[in-house]
Amino acid sequence: MKAFLDKQFLLNTDTAVQLYENAVTWLPIFDFHCHLNPQEVWENKPYENITQVWLGGDHYKWRLMRMHGNSERFITGDASDWEKFAAWAETVPYIIGNPLYHWTHMELKMFFGIEKTLSPETAREIYEECNEKLKQPDFRPRAFIERSNVKFIGTTDDPVSTLEYHKLLKNDDSFKAIIAPTFRPDGALLIERPTFEPWIEKLSEVSGIKVNSVDAFLQALKHRVDFFHENGGRASDHDIQKMEYVETAKEEVEKIFNKRISGEQLSNNELVAYRAFLLKELGKMYAEKQWVMQLHMGALRNNNSKMKELIGPDTGFDSVGEANFAEGLSRFLDALDKEDALPRTVLFNLNAKDNVVLAGMMGNFYEEGIPGKVQLGSGWWFLDHIDGMEKQMKDFANVGLLSHFIGMLTDSRSFLSYARHDYFRRILCNILGEWVEKGFAPNNMEFLEQMVRNIGYYNAEKYFLQR
Amino acid sequence: MKAFLDKQFLLNTDTAVQLYENAVTWLPIFDFHCHLNPQEVWENKPYENITQVWLGGDHYKWRLMRMHGNSERFITGDASDWEKFAAWAETVPYIIGNPLYHWTHMELKMFFGIEKTLSPETAREIYEECNEKLKQPDFRPRAFIERSNVKFIGTTDDPVSTLEYHKLLKNDDSFKAIIAPTFRPDGALLIERPTFEPWIEKLSEVSGIKVNSVDAFLQALKHRVDFFHENGGRASDHDIQKMEYVETAKEEVEKIFNKRISGEQLSNNELVAYRAFLLKELGKMYAEKQWVMQLHMGALRNNNSKMKELIGPDTGFDSVGEANFAEGLSRFLDALDKEDALPRTVLFNLNAKDNVVLAGMMGNFYEEGIPGKVQLGSGWWFLDHIDGMEKQMKDFANVGLLSHFIGMLTDSRSFLSYARHDYFRRILCNILGEWVEKGFAPNNMEFLEQMVRNIGYYNAEKYFLQR
Amino acid sequence: MKAFLDKQFLLNTDTAVQLYENAVTWLPIFDFHCHLNPQEVWENKPYENITQVWLGGDHYKWRLMRMHGNSERFITGDASDWEKFAAWAETVPYIIGNPLYHWTHMELKMFFGIEKTLSPETAREIYEECNEKLKQPDFRPRAFIERSNVKFIGTTDDPVSTLEYHKLLKNDDSFKAIIAPTFRPDGALLIERPTFEPWIEKLSEVSGIKVNSVDAFLQALKHRVDFFHENGGRASDHDIQKMEYVETAKEEVEKIFNKRISGEQLSNNELVAYRAFLLKELGKMYAEKQWVMQLHMGALRNNNSKMKELIGPDTGFDSVGEANFAEGLSRFLDALDKEDALPRTVLFNLNAKDNVVLAGMMGNFYEEGIPGKVQLGSGWWFLDHIDGMEKQMKDFANVGLLSHFIGMLTDSRSFLSYARHDYFRRILCNILGEWVEKGFAPNNMEFLEQMVRNIGYYNAEKYFLQR
Repeated sequence: MKAFLDKQFLLNTDTAVQLYENAVTWLPIFDFHCHLNPQEVWENKPYENITQVWLGGDHYKWRLMRMHGNSERFITGDASDWEKFAAWAETVPYIIGNPLYHWTHMELKMFFGIEKTLSPETAREIYEECNEKLKQPDFRPRAFIERSNVKFIGTTDDPVSTLEYHKLLKNDDSFKAIIAPTFRPDGALLIERPTFEPWIEKLSEVSGIKVNSVDAFLQALKHRVDFFHENGGRASDHDIQKMEYVETAKEEVEKIFNKRISGEQLSNNELVAYRAFLLKELGKMYAEKQWVMQLHMGALRNNNSKMKELIGPDTGFDSVGEANFAEGLSRFLDALDKEDALPRTVLFNLNAKDNVVLAGMMGNFYEEGIPGKVQLGSGWWFLDHIDGMEKQMKDFANVGLLSHFIGMLTDSRSFLSYARHDYFRRILCNILGEWVEKGFAPNNMEFLEQMVRNIGYYNAEKYFLQR
Repeated sequence: MKAFLDKQFLLNTDTAVQLYENAVTWLPIFDFHCHLNPQEVWENKPYENITQVWLGGDHYKWRLMRMHGNSERFITGDASDWEKFAAWAETVPYIIGNPLYHWTHMELKMFFGIEKTLSPETAREIYEECNEKLKQPDFRPRAFIERSNVKFIGTTDDPVSTLEYHKLLKNDDSFKAIIAPTFRPDGALLIERPTFEPWIEKLSEVSGIKVNSVDAFLQALKHRVDFFHENGGRASDHDIQKMEYVETAKEEVEKIFNKRISGEQLSNNELVAYRAFLLKELGKMYAEKQWVMQLHMGALRNNNSKMKELIGPDTGFDSVGEANFAEGLSRFLDALDKEDALPRTVLFNLNAKDNVVLAGMMGNFYEEGIPGKVQLGSGWWFLDHIDGMEKQMKDFANVGLLSHFIGMLTDSRSFLSYARHDYFRRILCNILGEWVEKGFAPNNMEFLEQMVRNIGYYNAEKYFLQR
Repeated sequence: MKAFLDKQFLLNTDTAVQLYENAVTWLPIFDFHCHLNPQEVWENKPYENITQVWLGGDHYKWRLMRMHGNSERFITGDASDWEKFAAWAETVPYIIGNPLYHWTHMELKMFFGIEKTLSPETAREIYEECNEKLKQPDFRPRAFIERSNVKFIGTTDDPVSTLEYHKLLKNDDSFKAIIAPTFRPDGALLIERPTFEPWIEKLSEVSGIKVNSVDAFLQALKHRVDFFHENGGRASDHDIQKMEYVETAKEEVEKIFNKRISGEQLSNNELVAYRAFLLKELGKMYAEKQWVMQLHMGALRNNNSKMKELIGPDTGFDSVGEANFAEGLSRFLDALDKEDALPRTVLFNLNAKDNVVLAGMMGNFYEEGIPGKVQLGSGWWFLDHIDGMEKQMKDFANVGLLSHFIGMLTDSRSFLSYARHDYFRRILCNILGEWVEKGFAPNNMEFLEQMVRNIGYYNAEKYFLQR
């Protein structure tokens, strides 16, 4: 029996242990997609307590606390920080089997050196020990990044953003990691929302281009792509709940755009046509810049109206949808590919049943000299756990070349989530170790160690940065 | 190598064995959903032979016999009971790998003390040994329940039922287990069937409310909910082949109802609107009574017209459908939740790909003080086997709190099916044991033993009965 | 640790090893579905080099080479055979984890006695060693078949084919294996394609029936079914991207047929109606001849327009689709069954999520005396790997009788693919071995060895040939 979270956690064979020790130790982190706030990195403010670090914006924890029967007061309400922490500590023993049980204790151990398990019995001492440490300079945002050996962070940014903090960080020689913005044009695509008009106004303002036609709209977006590129941007990100694609002429989109601007309601067909057109035009811009296009597909959002009303979106009420996307995605990628304008593309899904659909898609489009141009992304959100990551890697391997996989990302709002890269790397070493021990792969440790380093860091670096 | 079905069956680690021995032995059974006939419990008649117990109504066995190439004569036909048993015994060796291979031998061992495997060679002696024992008082319905330490049985009942046998059993001090009716209003929801009108008449009769309008209909249904509640009912059950939800006004439903009553054909949209409205109104009634709402989603029924014509529905010709339900289910639950009228809800699916859709849904709706208010139900029907149960529990754990899972049910027509609770509990202990041995969870046996007892019995008791 | 591809490859328990040694050694091969060219068997020409054997038409390898970033020149372009082989050898180390890593080395070992792993370092010597051997008579198509102990090969053939080479082979006493044609009427079903009219003309020509009406069309098809049957045909094969079924009258199809002949565009509803009608009529013909009907469902084809334009279909740009088929398939099979005209049917799917849909369908239709009449086919294409085959067999077993499974097929264009039967058989032995070792099945080796032999060979022989 292994002790909980011991040194060989998740490493079930000697080969896995050896791979991990030789290839992973000191391997830097390339965290190409997350939701960290660059302002927090710039300001590098100390935290008052662990509750601010852990429970301030983590809707994964909120969901578990709610399912445990906690009062909202201890989650997003007016309870004190200690009370909130105590409520979380009371919940933790009951989440055994959930990845957050591991993340919680890995973070306590990795960043605070605490090996106790969190529970009502240990809550007070852990709270105080963490808070004491959080006063030290080693426990601020920048230090967490540096201590985790993070070389690259891809934040998620609105195209109308001034990227003020990205610029400040770029010019700060004391901070080594690259903090690159990611272009996330929800504002442009969600034409049916009331947010569309103010967003368009903002876009006109920051781009200096009056957005009063589709051409002007595209010019303004192009301006922002250029601006992001100048400021280190090398990728875009899209949340796609339904992936439908119809080839649409600009004239038609002009009509839809004008209809919307003049306050009319758009039909579903018009929405699909608009989005297909815009997505393609954006794809072409990304390809021109040699960017990476990330597509996150299949979430079912804002399921709880009452809570959306009370505390807003992205607070823990999204789940896994069912919309088909194979055909739409195929047509969309093909439309770009036909014009030699398909950028490097990472496909993420929320239901493991779709792994093979996306893994199959990897082989439909390719480019000489770019191994793994289209990628099945690592287990996303509801798939971000041992079973989900193992299945993603095995499905990737079964129909593609796992050795070209660009690996893990945190997708997180917290500076402590780098522990998840360690989690992922252990699982990767364990899979390869199992293959060797079972005689599925030759015992060529040199190649396999390089494969771990590539998937753990170098493939992503090459995919995002080397041009 | 373990012997077939030995004491440590399904328990692959020492921790699993220890958990099973400490937590499961003597743990009672809470069988919250089955299809037992309460009249059979009340009458407690002896069986003439094992064929009556095993092959009288078990369409799981019928399917296997048919796929084995047996003649229908030996299945639902006029062959003698011995001939039918012999046909089943001839089939059994060929079903290795199917859960019924385990169930069959677990039931022989648990209830009859027979450790031989069933085959043509052993058929005659097993038949005679079983039949000899079936003459004893210990081998009647009530004894099977008592010997299995069953504390609660949730039957499945028509709202127009008089619950005659539930009443008789409640007043019989010699019988300790609770036999509670479950409200299954297929008759109300399946408005398109010719059975609708006679059912409505019957409803008028038993409720004393003339059902000639939607209001009267709802009053009559409310009357039956009250009646079920008085007689121990604490849950409803719905078979949902497609889950579509549209918010529908009562006036519209009034029109649909009248159209149906006057003999007109309803459109598909009307059917969807009717069902959505009625399901919501029923949900509100359940919530008011603090009942549990069970939704069984995704069966594809009556695939074989020839056999439906010959021997009727529910005879082994249903299978696994594909209708999407994420969006419809989300809207339906949200519609109730918005009115603070969402009851405790258990979601069952037939294709394991949907586990994560429903497990995700668990976190969208919640209530302070009710841990695990929305539940992903245990592996149902075509998922009721080792792989299905393991995956269900791991999927539950990965996105929720497995410690609040309400566990197993038999869904059976047979008094011997309690062996399946043992099957389930062994799988549960094995999962937890593996977590501990691998260092995924701390070796806190006290907590884990309680977790097994809770999932095995106490969570369900609390969920259904404690108010 | 096991050595790569050692004698006990994939056999993880003593029982598995024993089963494999006792039941599989010398077991012949019944390869009921492949894409071998009978002309190549007849002509039995020597190969000039291993590139011709391996890389001439294998789009599995092409996909991997493209995903690896190779130039198309080395794939389907004008590079020399050595250059192509070298490009493949350079790719191979990077495909670790993919089934082709195993197939490649199993084929080198089994047919050429080469135990080195393929890489740039070994490429030249392996190329030369293979080419040297390919000059020997033991390394031609017929010898590959004989050395693999293949008793039956089901090719895939156009109904308008003259079956010239099947006839020649049948009359060649020096060649023992049965090479049977399989009726694949894409030409008839794909009415919307420009290929339809020339195909119909060809059909008129070979059948001697002027196809100018639906009746004549059916007569001509019946003529070809008869012709295939006379020449050893015992099966049909259908590629079904979407499975929709509507009962359609001949008069309606007559209109659709005439509309098409007169050059008009057909609506989607007309296409569905046409296909449903024709599929049913074909099914009846198959049933009359006691043929096997194979349905391959769910591919998403020709995703890359650019490459389709350049090098045509079936060149590695197909992947996994999402069309639902449960309901359509159920109605289609039922329509045949109602008329007592359902042939033995094998159902193949591309996404493992659908295993349970099709495994469930197995139990809906049956026939006395034909065990396993409806079958879930072995892991197809994107599921043809260890994980896919294991899951297919477990899903089959969980809801059906694995002992009646007709087992493996190569679905290949290469004479070296028989190694995949060995791969499959090892996985099968391993599953059964695990069941025994864990106490899931009795240690009845005689029965289990027969089960392996049946699934490995005899079930298929019986299913396709014994009438």
